[in-house]
Amino acid sequence: MAVLLESLPLQERVLVWKLASPEGDGEVLLEVSDSVRETLIETMGQDELVAAMEDLPADEVAELAPDLPHDVVSEVLESRDEEEREQIRSTLSYKEGTIGTVMDYELLSIRADVACEVVLRYLRRFEKLPEHTDKIFVVDEGNVLQGVLKIRKLLVSDPDDLVSDVMARNVVKFHPDDDAEEAAQAFEKYDLITAPVVDEQQHLIGRLTVDEMLDVIREGSEADMLNMAGLKDEEDLFAPVIDSVKNRWAWLAVNLFTALVASRVIGLFEGSIEKIVALAALMPIVAGIGGNSGNQTITMIVRALAIGQISNTQATHLLKKEIGVALVNGLIWGSVMGIISFVLYHSIGLGVVMVAAMTLNLVLAATVGVLIPVTMERLGKDPALGSSVLITAVTDSGGFFIFLGLASIFLMH
Amino acid sequence: MAVLLESLPLQERVLVWKLASPEGDGEVLLEVSDSVRETLIETMGQDELVAAMEDLPADEVAELAPDLPHDVVSEVLESRDEEEREQIRSTLSYKEGTIGTVMDYELLSIRADVACEVVLRYLRRFEKLPEHTDKIFVVDEGNVLQGVLKIRKLLVSDPDDLVSDVMARNVVKFHPDDDAEEAAQAFEKYDLITAPVVDEQQHLIGRLTVDEMLDVIREGSEADMLNMAGLKDEEDLFAPVIDSVKNRWAWLAVNLFTALVASRVIGLFEGSIEKIVALAALMPIVAGIGGNSGNQTITMIVRALAIGQISNTQATHLLKKEIGVALVNGLIWGSVMGIISFVLYHSIGLGVVMVAAMTLNLVLAATVGVLIPVTMERLGKDPALGSSVLITAVTDSGGFFIFLGLASIFLMH
Repeated sequence: MAVLLESLPLQERVLVWKLASPEGDGEVLLEVSDSVRETLIETMGQDELVAAMEDLPADEVAELAPDLPHDVVSEVLESRDEEEREQIRSTLSYKEGTIGTVMDYELLSIRADVACEVVLRYLRRFEKLPEHTDKIFVVDEGNVLQGVLKIRKLLVSDPDDLVSDVMARNVVKFHPDDDAEEAAQAFEKYDLITAPVVDEQQHLIGRLTVDEMLDVIREGSEADMLNMAGLKDEEDLFAPVIDSVKNRWAWLAVNLFTALVASRVIGLFEGSIEKIVALAALMPIVAGIGGNSGNQTITMIVRALAIGQISNTQATHLLKKEIGVALVNGLIWGSVMGIISFVLYHSIGLGVVMVAAMTLNLVLAATVGVLIPVTMERLGKDPALGSSVLITAVTDSGGFFIFLGLASIFLMH
Repeated sequence: MAVLLESLPLQERVLVWKLASPEGDGEVLLEVSDSVRETLIETMGQDELVAAMEDLPADEVAELAPDLPHDVVSEVLESRDEEEREQIRSTLSYKEGTIGTVMDYELLSIRADVACEVVLRYLRRFEKLPEHTDKIFVVDEGNVLQGVLKIRKLLVSDPDDLVSDVMARNVVKFHPDDDAEEAAQAFEKYDLITAPVVDEQQHLIGRLTVDEMLDVIREGSEADMLNMAGLKDEEDLFAPVIDSVKNRWAWLAVNLFTALVASRVIGLFEGSIEKIVALAALMPIVAGIGGNSGNQTITMIVRALAIGQISNTQATHLLKKEIGVALVNGLIWGSVMGIISFVLYHSIGLGVVMVAAMTLNLVLAATVGVLIPVTMERLGKDPALGSSVLITAVTDSGGFFIFLGLASIFLMH
């Protein structure tokens, strides 16, 4: 249902949503993207929204709460018991992007000093076990996490074995203030299905599940891809024109400003261009190949940073390598272009300037392609953010300056 | 271990790998990326490689086989029993990117006509259950899939209940020739942990697990990001310079060719540039904003195609919307730039040409930004492949042609 709604243009989407039965409305709201959720919530009355929240557990109510009208949230809070109210409030209190905002409270916990047989009987008393239950958390009388009992282990153990003898004590666990993307990477690394979340004193307070982590991974890599191209947020594919304009204007403005700078750089050399008009035709080649090559470098680095593959000491190593690649490419492709320029304009000087300018601009692209994302990361900013726009800005202005500068020095008599 | 090796430069990596104990070598080889795997396998002797394969199940041997020397593969095959040899061969026979290449054979299956108590006793006979077991597959005497018994359900059921009464009959199942990325999307949609793979006659032949699907999702979105920037393959961050050059040269060559085309477009208007040298300074602005805006559009569309959000009928709708966005942006930013051009060069004509050229190039960028990936998808090609290079090629040549063409018509007297 959520997938269908996301792929429908606005009018059809509202129509389908209105016609759909209200049962499971809350689940659908959870599944759709933020921008699509907004369009759906707008069409619902207060009563409908409150009804939609009815069957959702605390963590999911908290996930939707920021998008709901204030009155709806208060009404929903009133309908819950004290424990759930507390869980909703606490989820809402965590910073965006932390584990606290994605954990749930559907915990199954047992003591270490009981037999497996007892655990099996205890489980049978439930109507239904929480989704994705692959392990049961083992806690002491103070709710301090002692270990986990994997269901796989429980099923093959002797019914008389004590939990303390079959549980795993070496547990991957998380804190609610930890970064959710790092937790997702740990889920990937250790092939986890669920994991406990504990506070500073090791009290069990919640759990993470692989389905939430999958969403974190998907959203993280999509955000990187969109951010690199200078798109601000996940945009509803069928958003009204005006919303799309708003979503994209910021980086277009940055781009326009940097293009203006590049234009002024060219303006500095108008005298040279007047004398040799071929410079105007050749300069975009230098700028273009720098932009393309810089984008290759920056994309690789952004990806490596996203999966935590680059440490501080390696930045220098990578910089050297990328400059090496740039020198090789510059000499090869620069020479090709130098020869073509010579053939077109019958000037050896122009050909030589072309080789030099292309090589230098590729080296500039490689340097900046490594330094921009690494610096952003060190400053605690998102290295993907507008990286494509920034690298192009540098290789454009830089490329024009290098090419026209060299030409002015060596070709003007 | 795998993560550590990936983030080490080549020499240190080989050193660490040589020092590491051979136990679990095979697992590490599985976890590292293709390019890093190559560098590790190169350092190992035939005996070491055979030993590393020893503890791996059939599906994992098959995953590594294409990267191993032929002799090693034969030796490993000989050491397995007939069933496993068959599994390895059959995994190797599936096309890349299909479910057949990522499924495993660690199946737990039971009959529908036994009691839950019997199932529990049957499970207890195992030393260990397969990883991620969240459900047991229910088959008839002909190994035809009847349904699945969720472990969560088994644990809360009455021991006397028959499997047929508590199993789920409505099962998400896959065929080995299905696309792995689509299966991964189904795992996301339906929050699956494992799922059965069946042949045409519904015989149970394997299973998919969420950890493999996580890798598929991660690799898919990374490949999109790298491909858009014109990087051919997953590149080892610390690859030797020459390997990186090889990995990137193809798209650089394409870029150089398209830059040459753009340069020739400018060459057509050298006469106009000689008369009004300001044109040379302003033309990159028109091309640049087109490239930036086109990249925003194409990134959105590539992402939407990747998650299956665009159907054929919607392409037209999206095209209209993107053109709308382009018109609004063109008129706003074009006017800003038109005024700046007027201030800089004191020519109303130049300002007006600027507004018109920017608007037209943004419309071109929007059109091509939708059409390139949608067409690629329809042709069965990867819409991400070099999309950033292609869109820039169109907006550069197009931008120069539109701007210089309009200027030549309206400003030359």
